Amino acid sequence: MQFPSGPTRRVVLGGLAALPLLRAARAQTPAGSDPLPSWNQGAAKAAILDLVRATTDPASPNFIAPEARIATFDQDGTTWVEHPIYTQVVYCLERVTAVVEAKPELKNVEPFKTVLSGNRAAIEELPQKDLLTLVAATLTGMSVDQFQAEAEKWIARAKHPRWDRLYTELTYQPMLEVMHYLRANGYKTYIVTGGGQDFVRSYAERVYGIPPEQVIGTALSLTYGYDKDGKPMLTREPKLLLNDNFAGKPESIHLEIGRRPIIAFGNSTGDRQMLEYAKAGAGARAALLVLHDDATREYAYGPTQGLPDTKVGTFTQELFDEATSNGWLVISMKSDWKKIFSFE
Amino acid sequence: MQFPSGPTRRVVLGGLAALPLLRAARAQTPAGSDPLPSWNQGAAKAAILDLVRATTDPASPNFIAPEARIATFDQDGTTWVEHPIYTQVVYCLERVTAVVEAKPELKNVEPFKTVLSGNRAAIEELPQKDLLTLVAATLTGMSVDQFQAEAEKWIARAKHPRWDRLYTELTYQPMLEVMHYLRANGYKTYIVTGGGQDFVRSYAERVYGIPPEQVIGTALSLTYGYDKDGKPMLTREPKLLLNDNFAGKPESIHLEIGRRPIIAFGNSTGDRQMLEYAKAGAGARAALLVLHDDATREYAYGPTQGLPDTKVGTFTQELFDEATSNGWLVISMKSDWKKIFSFE
Repeated sequence: MQFPSGPTRRVVLGGLAALPLLRAARAQTPAGSDPLPSWNQGAAKAAILDLVRATTDPASPNFIAPEARIATFDQDGTTWVEHPIYTQVVYCLERVTAVVEAKPELKNVEPFKTVLSGNRAAIEELPQKDLLTLVAATLTGMSVDQFQAEAEKWIARAKHPRWDRLYTELTYQPMLEVMHYLRANGYKTYIVTGGGQDFVRSYAERVYGIPPEQVIGTALSLTYGYDKDGKPMLTREPKLLLNDNFAGKPESIHLEIGRRPIIAFGNSTGDRQMLEYAKAGAGARAALLVLHDDATREYAYGPTQGLPDTKVGTFTQELFDEATSNGWLVISMKSDWKKIFSFE
Repeated sequence: MQFPSGPTRRVVLGGLAALPLLRAARAQTPAGSDPLPSWNQGAAKAAILDLVRATTDPASPNFIAPEARIATFDQDGTTWVEHPIYTQVVYCLERVTAVVEAKPELKNVEPFKTVLSGNRAAIEELPQKDLLTLVAATLTGMSVDQFQAEAEKWIARAKHPRWDRLYTELTYQPMLEVMHYLRANGYKTYIVTGGGQDFVRSYAERVYGIPPEQVIGTALSLTYGYDKDGKPMLTREPKLLLNDNFAGKPESIHLEIGRRPIIAFGNSTGDRQMLEYAKAGAGARAALLVLHDDATREYAYGPTQGLPDTKVGTFTQELFDEATSNGWLVISMKSDWKKIFSFE
């Protein structure tokens, strides 16, 4: 089936919102308070509440022991803004200045020269091999401790140009509520990101309440060695160990968790296999995709929005079709979220 | 310095046992009960109790927030018997029969022929490349779910010939007590094994109380795909992804945990880097090595025992020297452990 556009699409996404009021009500917390206050009543909210009730009620046929309650979240575009450019790419480009200060001979060498020019169009045109050169120069060669210290320092001050707010303020309030709600119900929440594992770890505990050992991401090879004082150190190498995108997501989930998620959240084709893998498990499962359809409060992009594809995560027609036929839920930012950011 | 042998060695290992009675007493649980009843009073027991007190008392200068309390344990030779042959190698060899049943044409092909002959000496002589052929044939090519089901089935019945008891009964009672004691004090306990990550995961929760996501080990590459019914599956490939021995241990610890252990336990050169890495962190840290010096109750082996080296984990003179000069503790199975197995 084709992704419905215009009025039809709104009926599918918005119309579902009217239906399951009763189910949503049943799944609320005992005190009657709403654990997901930034969510409008709708199919997505109901699916989350239903799954938690079904898996945590000892009388339920789908009850899951607390230790097997695993929830995985993609990050970019799922738990925070990814548009117009991934935060970690901004970090990588900004670090070029520091790299060139340390090695001035790079100033007139490509691709450093182009990055330093600030010519956005030219930067966006850089070929893959130049991007890899930039990653190697800016994100490798240092110890993991040094990388973490630098990333922490940067993320504490780096701001998104559109809102002039810290990137870490641009996390989606409804998703933070889901993480909190799942944890309050015995779930272990994981970030499973195509972004750098160590980069996300540098703020995940503070921002998402997710400790480093529950952040899975793209990872470089490390080399154990000793510094000049003979102290052990781990050095980041310019060699990819885990590419945590597409099929790499379930592969890394097995490597670093060893259990299949009960519920998984994504927003692009890079999350497709993770959602398939979660949904294919036995018993109650849920897979949800965030659809960026709110240009006013955030962004609207990707083919399903009738807009040209972008360089960041893509919600394709094919992904929508798979979601529809496999019982995944689509979260419309416009219809399902009362509030997107905490500061609204 | 040379590893002392005979009476001198006993003074070093046994003599320390007499010293820190007071420190050990201070570190006991509030109720006055001994959290490590299978341990004799001694330097090793005192070091464990002291570390826990120093890192969990909010008034201590070495207090560590609960989320950073990470403890890592090697498995073979550290938490269970590794002699005369690693349990997983037994599994691999026993699986040859099943593999040949499925593919009878392998019966007369090396190295399968030698394994099926049961000629122990010839099996031990098999070159590295033949062992890799066996690993590929017996432990790869199936889904991770199938591998887990088969490993669970085997470990539930496989017995060690010397004791005629399940391998899982041959875990060291003193180490189970340490794991329990650390967890009761907010520590997250991890297995960090040179053995197969998925193999150890198949029983670690039941045997050690350690969930799969806290088992780190040697890991193969996985491939995400679909079975004949179109259901997602992860297949174990005959390709090494993580070699969790030597430098691979701290590298995997960073990859799968992202924090440096506060306390680490090992028993061989394969654990050296993990112990160095743990001990080199800031604040209170502890690194402990199990010395197999009790041929009566378990085994005595390795150069430090004046015995020929074996094919399994080696406690070398060099390792002993590093332990001595870096303030690591040596756990003498003979002197430090009142009881080795729970069934004694």
